[in-house]
Amino acid sequence: MSFIEKLNSIWEENDSLVCVGLDPDLERFPKSIRDVPDAIFQFNKRIIDATHDLVCAYKPQIAYFSAESAEDQLTKTIQYIQSEYPSIPIILDSKRGDIGSTANKYAVEAFERFKVDAVTINPYMGYDSAEPFLSYQDKGTVLLCRTSNSGASDIQDLIVDGVPLYQKVATLISDKWNYNNNCLLVVGATWPSQMAKVRSLVGDMPFLVPGVGAQGGDIEALVKAGKTANGKGLIISSSRGVIYASGEDDFDSKAREVVLKLRSQINLHRK
Amino acid sequence: MSFIEKLNSIWEENDSLVCVGLDPDLERFPKSIRDVPDAIFQFNKRIIDATHDLVCAYKPQIAYFSAESAEDQLTKTIQYIQSEYPSIPIILDSKRGDIGSTANKYAVEAFERFKVDAVTINPYMGYDSAEPFLSYQDKGTVLLCRTSNSGASDIQDLIVDGVPLYQKVATLISDKWNYNNNCLLVVGATWPSQMAKVRSLVGDMPFLVPGVGAQGGDIEALVKAGKTANGKGLIISSSRGVIYASGEDDFDSKAREVVLKLRSQINLHRK
Repeated sequence: MSFIEKLNSIWEENDSLVCVGLDPDLERFPKSIRDVPDAIFQFNKRIIDATHDLVCAYKPQIAYFSAESAEDQLTKTIQYIQSEYPSIPIILDSKRGDIGSTANKYAVEAFERFKVDAVTINPYMGYDSAEPFLSYQDKGTVLLCRTSNSGASDIQDLIVDGVPLYQKVATLISDKWNYNNNCLLVVGATWPSQMAKVRSLVGDMPFLVPGVGAQGGDIEALVKAGKTANGKGLIISSSRGVIYASGEDDFDSKAREVVLKLRSQINLHRK
Repeated sequence: MSFIEKLNSIWEENDSLVCVGLDPDLERFPKSIRDVPDAIFQFNKRIIDATHDLVCAYKPQIAYFSAESAEDQLTKTIQYIQSEYPSIPIILDSKRGDIGSTANKYAVEAFERFKVDAVTINPYMGYDSAEPFLSYQDKGTVLLCRTSNSGASDIQDLIVDGVPLYQKVATLISDKWNYNNNCLLVVGATWPSQMAKVRSLVGDMPFLVPGVGAQGGDIEALVKAGKTANGKGLIISSSRGVIYASGEDDFDSKAREVVLKLRSQINLHRK
């Protein structure tokens, strides 16, 4: 089953557009779990067990694993999801981007080493930096378009032919890079008006939407701006707002509460 | 000693602007070394031992290590250079780029886990994605500007305010991001006219120049276009053209020959 099919299926199965971002930061772990062996995996496992019936995807952020030399715990986290909850797609958030020969190796990293369903990449280096990912037809390639952070405007909003760069990027990807129908775009939750514009440019291409929760995006506005005609099309990701909802040992049940609420808030506006 | 000081020193010491890129690809290794334990490290070690007196930097490309789950051999490679040839700066080529909180983790990956002197990053996400790197004052942050690959024009050449995007990026970094005097730019060897323009915009900021060798850049043209008034300012990187100069067990001595020749060709035009 391709990533896109898996995504369409889980949107229905869990009635959810919520993605939980796994940004495991030891310094923010409850004391009860900080010092156990494989603490990062154990933390993720409890978050996953507490939320698996409420999400449409998990998105591990590789930087948090790399900073701790914990690639093995990223592998364990991915294998755990695939073994226990195989219908849930996994998006590796790594934002890679390099010349073709090197991009090939990054595609191997994502799709053969970590065996995820989709990966985020950066489009700045152009087509040959994306092609090795796109050629994995059944995998998803999630390209940065308009990101959620404060500095996004520095480059993404520069005006090209009368429109902001991120719109040119969206059109380029939609028109030229999506020949396998496996592209997605990152469009930050913090900018609903930009999201509406991008939606108007790219049809039903799914968006990965970071920036709700800790980054403060407005849910009603973003859902109305980004949803497709069938009330889907969005993978709305919250990381820190979910996984650090409590700093105590009830972090998993509190994470579940936050995801339940977020799913309800989203579903209120998408149908 | 800061990265910039280290670079200025080694440019003199080895009379060289040549950087050797370490892109270890098991499939291209000579049979004699492919199956030895820690083959990637052993391969790199022989390249390093054969070229250390001729280079101004080594640039390991992390994708080649990640695709093989060989982060440990990247660490060994870096530690070997630092122990045996401590005057040679190491640039980790990873082209990271993410929101501030995640960029912090990538900065930890580069500067605390792998302990390199400089790292390549992607500017598409804007200032807060670069700031965690820039704040390591003694480290180098090498930002993509005009890359060497065929797809570079897709986005980097789009016209903003009458000039190509890569020139806006160069000016932004030079004017606003270089407050610690620790920024460098990636400017591909394959585009000497673009390099001359970028040089005119950013003063003496060093360039990392990939694309000679396997990618076919013209050495005379790029040196004249990119050198600073003192005949330096460039880190001219060749990877595959050096390390795979021979597919046999003489790969290290052949690599030395290629680097010697490249250094001479460059020095002919820089003084």
